[in-house]
Amino acid sequence: MTTAMHSAVQPSRRGVLGAAATGALAVGLGGAGGPAAASPYRDDRVDQGARGDGLPVGGSPRRTVAILLYDGFTALDAVGPYEMLCRLPDVRVVTVAHRPGPVRTDTGQLALTAERALADVRRADVLLVPGGGNRGTIATMEDRAVLNWIRLLHRRTTWTTSVCTGSLILGSAGLLKGLPATTYWASRPYLAKLGAVWTPGRFVETGRIITAAGVSAGLDMGLHLVARLCDDVTARATQLAVEYDPHPPFDSGSPEKADETTRRLALELIDDAAVPAA
Amino acid sequence: MTTAMHSAVQPSRRGVLGAAATGALAVGLGGAGGPAAASPYRDDRVDQGARGDGLPVGGSPRRTVAILLYDGFTALDAVGPYEMLCRLPDVRVVTVAHRPGPVRTDTGQLALTAERALADVRRADVLLVPGGGNRGTIATMEDRAVLNWIRLLHRRTTWTTSVCTGSLILGSAGLLKGLPATTYWASRPYLAKLGAVWTPGRFVETGRIITAAGVSAGLDMGLHLVARLCDDVTARATQLAVEYDPHPPFDSGSPEKADETTRRLALELIDDAAVPAA
Repeated sequence: MTTAMHSAVQPSRRGVLGAAATGALAVGLGGAGGPAAASPYRDDRVDQGARGDGLPVGGSPRRTVAILLYDGFTALDAVGPYEMLCRLPDVRVVTVAHRPGPVRTDTGQLALTAERALADVRRADVLLVPGGGNRGTIATMEDRAVLNWIRLLHRRTTWTTSVCTGSLILGSAGLLKGLPATTYWASRPYLAKLGAVWTPGRFVETGRIITAAGVSAGLDMGLHLVARLCDDVTARATQLAVEYDPHPPFDSGSPEKADETTRRLALELIDDAAVPAA
Repeated sequence: MTTAMHSAVQPSRRGVLGAAATGALAVGLGGAGGPAAASPYRDDRVDQGARGDGLPVGGSPRRTVAILLYDGFTALDAVGPYEMLCRLPDVRVVTVAHRPGPVRTDTGQLALTAERALADVRRADVLLVPGGGNRGTIATMEDRAVLNWIRLLHRRTTWTTSVCTGSLILGSAGLLKGLPATTYWASRPYLAKLGAVWTPGRFVETGRIITAAGVSAGLDMGLHLVARLCDDVTARATQLAVEYDPHPPFDSGSPEKADETTRRLALELIDDAAVPAA
């Protein structure tokens, strides 16, 4: 699929990104406008043909990032790390769910497509478990097929990771016993119930497990993962590639920075927790 | 759809987010753990039944955010603002493309579902145009059906917005002539070709048009939009709801902060620009 889409690009077309733009930019770029020569990234992603099904061909040196999707997951939990990882030349991201097809988020207003079924993905270099609303998180914490799949993949991952309440799902799979971890700010007490030790931080790395704090913390963790999978040079380039120079217009992004009213209203806004049980 | 999903939640179930968690949290929350009473947000989202098709029922006071999807768009450009806006009680987000169904991103590795066709969405309170890779951006800048649709919606929007190279698409629709705007860092020169005046900032507001810088800048703009659509109190609560307290592990998120090597490598990493034209 990717290969086919790429070959549809007209060779003579001048782009609006990157090489074509740099000529007019005052950022002092050197050879980026030239052809394929001297690129540390370019050759691999083209030479390694995908099978058109979201996984690399057999024998490919590519590393696979498997992102679990489940009914009620939070979109940005998955898309934040995806956006950091998806452009690495030897990394292939694949979304996985019970069944391939659209999977709805916690708000019900958006769906992402799962490319593969759990049963068809038995190994990944990186596993990412996003968080979700109450409904989706709880259902997945009790979903034996998903928990077994997580345990299976975790045996051979390089990194097993989560964002937001995804760590409660990792914990339910028994992966966090006695380990430092983090989660969504309002869910911190639940880590202890699963045997984990809540630890402050945008993300917490312990052995080969990395858990991120709520929702948007997946961007920070994703960038850290790029450094772990590749190197700091590539992580810095990835940060610029997605122009991740955050300037939130407010400063209430953690419970420690927010006042009581803000915390109360935030809890009203999140997910199905705000829906009366009638 | 949303309503049906919500009513499946077991009333007696204790959640892992928010209300259920707050009892054990030391954040001093007051009545958030109680039933529906005293919530400024709660009633509206339940009372306003959705038709199950992604748009509010006729006569609903809800405001609609229409997010354009097109082949080759960048996932985070759409999902960043979505995640800020989707939990507002009187806001409904709907994804729109030529046809309903899965729409692939610039990397080809992920697809989001478009809920509605262009022809079926003739009005929105907020229009959001995400950016994309070279291929997707250029194709959309030349897509007369999309440009006409943008012009049609813009007549009656409260806010017409873009992320990343989405501003080049707004510019192609003739919306930015003589106006300050921003775009992806490597695409800045193209704004002038479309009659706009590149202006520094994570997002640039002029009249009822707001353009954001590259990819992740949509989170900052999304939060600003919440403040514009509601108020600063709700924006602060939204920021906490998605725990947007960014701490990137590196500091090369803008071309001004990055060295030449980083800029060159970033351009190699982005999108189809990195694919040889062979």
